[in-house]
Amino acid sequence: MTRRPHRASATGVARIVCEQISPVVGELTANLASIIAAVHRALDARADVIVLPELATSGYVFASLEEARTQALTGDDPFFTAVVDLLHGTDTVVVFGFCELAPRGVLYNSAALVTAEGVAAIYRKTHLWDRETLVFTRGDQPPPVITTVHGRIGIAICYDLEFSEMPRALALAGADLLAVPTNWPLGDHPAGERHAEIIIAQAAARTNGAFIAICDRAGLERGQAWNEGSVVIDQFGWVQAVASDAEHPSATADVFLNLARDKAISPHNNLLADRRPDVYSIEVSAK
Amino acid sequence: MTRRPHRASATGVARIVCEQISPVVGELTANLASIIAAVHRALDARADVIVLPELATSGYVFASLEEARTQALTGDDPFFTAVVDLLHGTDTVVVFGFCELAPRGVLYNSAALVTAEGVAAIYRKTHLWDRETLVFTRGDQPPPVITTVHGRIGIAICYDLEFSEMPRALALAGADLLAVPTNWPLGDHPAGERHAEIIIAQAAARTNGAFIAICDRAGLERGQAWNEGSVVIDQFGWVQAVASDAEHPSATADVFLNLARDKAISPHNNLLADRRPDVYSIEVSAK
Repeated sequence: MTRRPHRASATGVARIVCEQISPVVGELTANLASIIAAVHRALDARADVIVLPELATSGYVFASLEEARTQALTGDDPFFTAVVDLLHGTDTVVVFGFCELAPRGVLYNSAALVTAEGVAAIYRKTHLWDRETLVFTRGDQPPPVITTVHGRIGIAICYDLEFSEMPRALALAGADLLAVPTNWPLGDHPAGERHAEIIIAQAAARTNGAFIAICDRAGLERGQAWNEGSVVIDQFGWVQAVASDAEHPSATADVFLNLARDKAISPHNNLLADRRPDVYSIEVSAK
Repeated sequence: MTRRPHRASATGVARIVCEQISPVVGELTANLASIIAAVHRALDARADVIVLPELATSGYVFASLEEARTQALTGDDPFFTAVVDLLHGTDTVVVFGFCELAPRGVLYNSAALVTAEGVAAIYRKTHLWDRETLVFTRGDQPPPVITTVHGRIGIAICYDLEFSEMPRALALAGADLLAVPTNWPLGDHPAGERHAEIIIAQAAARTNGAFIAICDRAGLERGQAWNEGSVVIDQFGWVQAVASDAEHPSATADVFLNLARDKAISPHNNLLADRRPDVYSIEVSAK
């Protein structure tokens, strides 16, 4: 395959592409190939930032910790080099979730941010959902914010985003875009409403004046269905793109990430400067 | 008027009524009468918790601080006694916004929680919106949580709710219901979306497992229109009631506030216990 090198737009527009692929538990080799194929597709679509699902390498519905361990990659696995090589000649950034094998067999639900320069960051999910707690160890480091040619990208994973402290911390650290690999188990919502997780993300985007790109997964896995709710949300909290129904579903939006630098929302108000940390701690008297 | 005493339901159901009245700047006496009439209507509807708008006593669009001062009430104004008397023989709670005159002529954008026992709390808005900053002094105390026979009620005012730290602080302090007097200037939103402020409130309710009752105002005031978006939201973030189009618009919902005591959302997850304050502070390196 030949491809023209894809460089950052001189106009400052960044094309965000969430590739909502379908990992399969136990099919590590096929999952890695699926990631490579998805990155290829997004590069062909001239993506500047590519987001892939949580645990894209391994699938999600593990029978046991032992099974997960057989599907895990160390942070120096050659697969990362393969992704780096794929980005050669481009300014494109890829964020994807993977099952990370750490020393002493400890597993983390992690995400990597990769560019043509290498692996810029690995983040270990700090808020584990349900049975993830039986498989993974909770990360103990704050989420990273990585300066890229497209803007500053913060990382969170799925349930992390339901703690408003996380997008807030990322925005305070300067994130223009939150890239959020996700596996959203299918949930109910009343007719006419969006998925609850998207409502939470819209609020996070608007109250922090930051863009959010969430890549969900597809594909029934051991009976588990998913929202298939990949979405790109602008800095006002409005949905700019949702996953298509195509054979390879994706959500694509062209955005001006630099707009996230302006936190003024009235002549007298600023989303971050208006915070009042002095009043956020309420004394609770013992009863 | 005679009224049967209204006591808390033995079943634990609480009827929340947001009376979306239309204050008028400069018409203090008429505004106070409008509040009394709204409380009467809600009591007739057997309300357990009545929420009224921000600055219900005074209106919102002041020409100057001096004008606002002529419309302000001190915290011991006889009007509060009138509301207390109105609640005699009931367990009903009323939360309403008022323009508060404090010593040395300082003004606060405040809200009072009143029961038949008296004024239980006065809260002074800590996040001021736009030109409010030219009229009011910012409150410097955390928002209160008041234990009532219906449950624990926290107070926030309008723009306060757009800081996720506020509902979080109130939930951590035990609030089952957030009562939020509001004046939402009319805002744009894409077709098919709710008002942004409601999306933010839905997220706040769901991520804290708490009910939220927001009372907006109606009535064009000096050219300013409003969302007229009064809403009662359940602990899952779903809208249970919105303001009616009636002559006296209101949003009414019967809710089990005790459901807010259960923060478990999976066999392994708890909305508040899952927080990771250790990772919410990101070191930002100087550039």
